[in-house]
Amino acid sequence: MKLEIINTGTELLSGSVLNTHQQFLCKRLYELGFEVTRQISIPDTADEIKSAISDSLKRADVIITTGGLGPTSDDRTRDAIAELIGKKLVFDEQVALNIKEYFKKRNRSEPQSAKIQAYIPEGAIALQNQYGTAPGLVIEVDVERNEFKKTAKSLLILLPGPPRELYPMFDKQVIPLLKDRFQNLTFFCKILRTTGIPESILEETIKEPIKPFEEQGLIVGYCARIGEVDLRLEARVKDAERIVTEAESVVRKLIGDFIYAEGDTTLEAVIVDILKKKGKRVAVAESCTGGCVSHRITNVPGASDVFWGAVISYSNDAKMRVIGVSENSLKSYGAVSEQVAKEMAEGLRKLSKSDYAISLTGIAGPSGGSEQKPVGTVFIGLCSSSGTVVKKYFNPYDRETFKRVASQQALEMLRRALIS
Amino acid sequence: MKLEIINTGTELLSGSVLNTHQQFLCKRLYELGFEVTRQISIPDTADEIKSAISDSLKRADVIITTGGLGPTSDDRTRDAIAELIGKKLVFDEQVALNIKEYFKKRNRSEPQSAKIQAYIPEGAIALQNQYGTAPGLVIEVDVERNEFKKTAKSLLILLPGPPRELYPMFDKQVIPLLKDRFQNLTFFCKILRTTGIPESILEETIKEPIKPFEEQGLIVGYCARIGEVDLRLEARVKDAERIVTEAESVVRKLIGDFIYAEGDTTLEAVIVDILKKKGKRVAVAESCTGGCVSHRITNVPGASDVFWGAVISYSNDAKMRVIGVSENSLKSYGAVSEQVAKEMAEGLRKLSKSDYAISLTGIAGPSGGSEQKPVGTVFIGLCSSSGTVVKKYFNPYDRETFKRVASQQALEMLRRALIS
Repeated sequence: MKLEIINTGTELLSGSVLNTHQQFLCKRLYELGFEVTRQISIPDTADEIKSAISDSLKRADVIITTGGLGPTSDDRTRDAIAELIGKKLVFDEQVALNIKEYFKKRNRSEPQSAKIQAYIPEGAIALQNQYGTAPGLVIEVDVERNEFKKTAKSLLILLPGPPRELYPMFDKQVIPLLKDRFQNLTFFCKILRTTGIPESILEETIKEPIKPFEEQGLIVGYCARIGEVDLRLEARVKDAERIVTEAESVVRKLIGDFIYAEGDTTLEAVIVDILKKKGKRVAVAESCTGGCVSHRITNVPGASDVFWGAVISYSNDAKMRVIGVSENSLKSYGAVSEQVAKEMAEGLRKLSKSDYAISLTGIAGPSGGSEQKPVGTVFIGLCSSSGTVVKKYFNPYDRETFKRVASQQALEMLRRALIS
Repeated sequence: MKLEIINTGTELLSGSVLNTHQQFLCKRLYELGFEVTRQISIPDTADEIKSAISDSLKRADVIITTGGLGPTSDDRTRDAIAELIGKKLVFDEQVALNIKEYFKKRNRSEPQSAKIQAYIPEGAIALQNQYGTAPGLVIEVDVERNEFKKTAKSLLILLPGPPRELYPMFDKQVIPLLKDRFQNLTFFCKILRTTGIPESILEETIKEPIKPFEEQGLIVGYCARIGEVDLRLEARVKDAERIVTEAESVVRKLIGDFIYAEGDTTLEAVIVDILKKKGKRVAVAESCTGGCVSHRITNVPGASDVFWGAVISYSNDAKMRVIGVSENSLKSYGAVSEQVAKEMAEGLRKLSKSDYAISLTGIAGPSGGSEQKPVGTVFIGLCSSSGTVVKKYFNPYDRETFKRVASQQALEMLRRALIS
């Protein structure tokens, strides 16, 4: 089954808007076991709409479009498609009534232009729009799909562009329709989130051991983000769940230490969760990361139960007077040193009376590096009742990536300490 | 000139990753005067890659792909394209050297798999990857473009997928290449970045006054992001620069106070710049934003010259013992109050001996609100030699949006104080 998504909107191609519709639709469809085989963004011109849809009709069994159904002059999808498939636009009483109702409910008078949305391609089924005026449209199209001119049927599903209209219409009306039409999907998927292991090493480590499962239908995917790699195990065959689960247990034996969560869960959410369960508190002393670690921890709802706070000791003055790093150490070893990371973690744990204190001191760049301590050097300290550990890392990236990677390393150090 | 973007990555079609590459590339190209006519996402399979690129070659003069150039088994773009255009993969000494160098610099041994990236399609030009191992590739392809079998040339530009590799490679190597090849674009564009004024009010205010320029060819665009709106003035006609510049001066008279920068400059970069020029320092006391303000300030290279540091006083304990907020105030007014915001700013200014101290205390949610102080309430304080001001804002959004908006309001308060 081939499924394509076409997002219309000139703003998507000028870069002024991020294409969040793509992710929303792909995620939902994927979770249901449908594979999106292609996604396309095109500007709001009749020619581009006709050209893209006509291309997709040659390939796909289901085509979902977003946008271009409204009443204004740059809403061209409805007209373009009617023309492409050779159908007249006909007035739909029920849709016209829904539009009238929409304005009545909101005590607004119906603008002249709204009625145009009640003209739909002949034979189309209208999906009701609870949060706007443009109906969704479902159209069955006969197409010649290959060199044998074999006739097939494609399902065209046209959805409105505004997210607050699109999302509920998709969830409440399109999903049941797709489930009903394609009932025999077999699908199981698991995403394992790892940190601290590069993508290439991860693949090398598990490649051979999971081969037997691939022969049974396992599909393996890797997705590298800054400081982390997601490993995706999925199968679309009979017995999918067993195959994925058995492969997962093999993978966990090999690289389990690096797996911090499943699915969508972030590293900071894992940490807040463990701290809560253990009734422990953490405090952070950040220099080079400048608040990135604290920002991430406090993105998690309920962080206030486990997070004392942080000192962003960007200046030496803040390191000395707030956290109690000794002037002598700063002079002898430099602000970016194992000794200063140690004193930051220990000083902050004392100040905050927290169970754990993390410290980071490094050189984010682009300037400030030296031969001995190049840009990218960072010392990360962790102080707890079992003592203080300092690790040195080297992250020679741009400034923001450096901050992100170092924050990931610090959070992972804490996670490992929490579960050990 | 037709330009298409092809983003490869199964993760884009399963919805596990948002397609930020699309926006990055479209935005950059648009600002240079290039219009992207289509954007396509496809999974990492050789068949889909060949099919999509072969389709694009029929339409586009320039095709930019992202992803699939790395060393793992799901990196298939290089091989698929070589096959599609009928070129052998040949070993490139210089690329191999760059890869070797990359690992040497990082004190890591070169994995066996890395060398595969030094095999590039015959005749391709390699773009050096400063932040990774996969080179970018530029390939000139002869194509038959229409029913007359007229031969044309398409430029295929293959770029790596990781953002920290893609972005600098595009900016430093691809832009000059495109500019050089397409020199005769008539285009002038100015982006004015505003904060503190909603999109609808902005549009209402300038709509009539700029009409005369629109009649001459001015195109106006609005792009709303969290806590800010970009106003884009552009023209693609003869005299483009004059039209845009005159329209800009009309706009500045009407809403100049809300404009904090032009182009890509962030609010935090503006602030660091002004502080540097004035030789002043700032310190931050954050509660509800949990490090977001500090994180933003320290994203700016050179922040260390003007940023003392911050205290993320998430707990009352940190507020009292580090910044010196009185226990009495916390009890009588609550942690989220004008009085506490005032004491935080004043306490921190004293502690840090900075010229300016900002404070934030509020309720980020989802829980913790009350009837009197609902989720979204925030008090922002600013203390300087001219005294202390506290403002109350209401940002009833999700947690991360709340943090971003509040940080924007705090930074804007500081900017206004700095330029007044």
